[in-house]
Amino acid sequence: MKISIIPIGDELLIGQVTDTNSGWIARHIAPAGWEVTDVNVTGDNAEDIRRAIDLAFERSQVVITTGGLGPTKDDITKGVLRDYFGGEMITDPEVTDNINAIFARRGIAMNPLTAAQAIVPSSARIIQNRVGTAPIMWFERTDGRVLVAMPGVPFETETMMAEAVFPALLERFPSSEHIEHAVVMVTDHTESALAMRLSEIEEALPPHLHLAYLPKPGLIRLRIDGHHSDAEFIRSEVERVHSDIKTLLGDAVLTDRDLSPAQTLLEECRSREVTFATAESCTGGNIAHEITLIAGASDVMAGGVVSYSNEVKSRVLGVDPELIIAHGAVSIPVVRAMAEGVLKVTGARLSVATSGIAGPGGGTPEKPVGTVCICARLELPGIEPRELYETARFNGSRSRIIDSATTRALILAVKLLRSAE
Amino acid sequence: MKISIIPIGDELLIGQVTDTNSGWIARHIAPAGWEVTDVNVTGDNAEDIRRAIDLAFERSQVVITTGGLGPTKDDITKGVLRDYFGGEMITDPEVTDNINAIFARRGIAMNPLTAAQAIVPSSARIIQNRVGTAPIMWFERTDGRVLVAMPGVPFETETMMAEAVFPALLERFPSSEHIEHAVVMVTDHTESALAMRLSEIEEALPPHLHLAYLPKPGLIRLRIDGHHSDAEFIRSEVERVHSDIKTLLGDAVLTDRDLSPAQTLLEECRSREVTFATAESCTGGNIAHEITLIAGASDVMAGGVVSYSNEVKSRVLGVDPELIIAHGAVSIPVVRAMAEGVLKVTGARLSVATSGIAGPGGGTPEKPVGTVCICARLELPGIEPRELYETARFNGSRSRIIDSATTRALILAVKLLRSAE
Repeated sequence: MKISIIPIGDELLIGQVTDTNSGWIARHIAPAGWEVTDVNVTGDNAEDIRRAIDLAFERSQVVITTGGLGPTKDDITKGVLRDYFGGEMITDPEVTDNINAIFARRGIAMNPLTAAQAIVPSSARIIQNRVGTAPIMWFERTDGRVLVAMPGVPFETETMMAEAVFPALLERFPSSEHIEHAVVMVTDHTESALAMRLSEIEEALPPHLHLAYLPKPGLIRLRIDGHHSDAEFIRSEVERVHSDIKTLLGDAVLTDRDLSPAQTLLEECRSREVTFATAESCTGGNIAHEITLIAGASDVMAGGVVSYSNEVKSRVLGVDPELIIAHGAVSIPVVRAMAEGVLKVTGARLSVATSGIAGPGGGTPEKPVGTVCICARLELPGIEPRELYETARFNGSRSRIIDSATTRALILAVKLLRSAE
Repeated sequence: MKISIIPIGDELLIGQVTDTNSGWIARHIAPAGWEVTDVNVTGDNAEDIRRAIDLAFERSQVVITTGGLGPTKDDITKGVLRDYFGGEMITDPEVTDNINAIFARRGIAMNPLTAAQAIVPSSARIIQNRVGTAPIMWFERTDGRVLVAMPGVPFETETMMAEAVFPALLERFPSSEHIEHAVVMVTDHTESALAMRLSEIEEALPPHLHLAYLPKPGLIRLRIDGHHSDAEFIRSEVERVHSDIKTLLGDAVLTDRDLSPAQTLLEECRSREVTFATAESCTGGNIAHEITLIAGASDVMAGGVVSYSNEVKSRVLGVDPELIIAHGAVSIPVVRAMAEGVLKVTGARLSVATSGIAGPGGGTPEKPVGTVCICARLELPGIEPRELYETARFNGSRSRIIDSATTRALILAVKLLRSAE
């Protein structure tokens, strides 16, 4: 089944907010064999919203709008939908109850603006929003096509899609086509080098299979997509190609599941009962942040030090100031000392350390912007400490360099851990 | 002038990559008085791309596509544009030179797939891509409407838009309408409470002015938009409302410019020559990361400790283990000790500390998921140390709770710093 999404809001068009709802919806409907055919971002403007709905219904059975349902004057979606689908504005007492319950939980009193959220078009079937004040509205055309209006707040849309809207859509539109995906996360390749290496496999692909390359800083996510009416057949087909690619790429496969480098490291550490710590200069806490974003990180994560200044490198991590003077803060000897120091102060077994020039200033001819020294260190009881270190040179903006260095550090930690077997 | 954007790529529609190019373009064209009227995300499918271009040209003089220009088989934009605008595929020797130069700089050899990037439609005017291998293509219809095909990689699109494409568009379409924005970042309000407080100002707004509410976790970004043919007039109008709102909201204004909490804190610290440090448990490095993402953070940022485990809280930050046993790790006494400890070990003047339950597990009836204790501490020479602390309760997913706690900690640090005057 085809779905069109219409994210609504001037804040999206002027670039103050990035639409993440569409991607979330697409990722979560794929297992049902449904696909998002287009995403049409539209401003808070009645004519544009109507035009987008008309166009979306030309090609899709289901249209999902997000946003524009707030209590403030700039939110007009509800009125536009009333005009589009007909009916009158009525107060829905169940929505009032729901808003009262939410405000009671948060310990604040309802105000008139929020109370107006309970006024809805009579043509809509209301789905109560358990986690927010804007009710979800389900409209149905005489030809059976459906429009669902969701809130703009990602947490609300994600929660209520999963809890109520997907189940209702699945019941209304039972699916026949089966879609399968498999992923390989590939290190140590540029996109074109990987494509050349996979050219034989790719040329032999039957029409029901497709390869997609998704380059990220420091990593390529390679996705195998298959679709077919026979669920068992397409599953085995995707598995066959997945296995061929893994065999061909060998050590360059970080993981054969759809896991980030941080998730991969966390799983590898957990299965070996190894604790982890970070010593970050140029990545400034981002490695620790990526790890601790994952639920359950506390099994593995001991902690870390953001040693942004040289003083902290020496005072907290015990890096010899002479070493910094002799080699510079961005050097292999310094990151090795940081990786060792953080194991000492945290008591963890595995660490990564970074020191580099994230830019835009601070570059020199010998160490241009993008130069990052990285060290991973493993100290297991009864065996010699092991290390992996390198000086990398990344391209791009400051945030891209930080992202690339974060990814590379996590990859080195995984490689070091695996090499110790 | 109206601009339509067509981000192209299956990876966008299936939600594996989020389109950030459109927002970036929108933010950067606004000062020219141009606006993005719609963003139509389209898959790697010739028919859909053609349809999107047709629809975009119905309403906009300029259409910008992003993505689908890579060297791999799934990228088809170039062929579709050749069919749409006519001409033949020719090899552009200047593009070959450019790709060779880029590969030489990265120290890798060009392969045949990358060499194919230099094959372009003869109907396109080529703009060399200084930072990537996919050339930028400028097409012009007989009616004067223009399509520019940009790469999908954000760094490449951002760099080349700023350097080459915006200047070329400005020359081709001189602007007459003037657009002005002003922003107030508001703390301590829900969206509807803020709207009620501003209702008088909002109702008195003339048609050339508009208020937009952009709630983020822990903060509302309030934007005043104005547009008018008289640049001087609209600037003074936006300034007038901006000033009225600031006067009304007083201390709830974090900043009257479009700055994030991290940027605001960095500026406040820099102007006072105060150094900053973080002691993070539940935020896991995110506060330090937000600060160090900003170029020039090293003036202010000393460093930080991610004290995820209780052992690190005691060993590195010197928190008395008895305190943790008596009050629990998520408690005001513990975050106060963390904030003090990190000033001691880093030598910084201002610190924030967080400890909380980010979930989804770990909640108790007394301390449910979302409970976060936060302390900001300031030690200036010759005056008593000052503190601000609170126990907050945030809603939402793990990442939202981490974001909310990060924002609140940065806000408390700004408030503490300002209170010390």
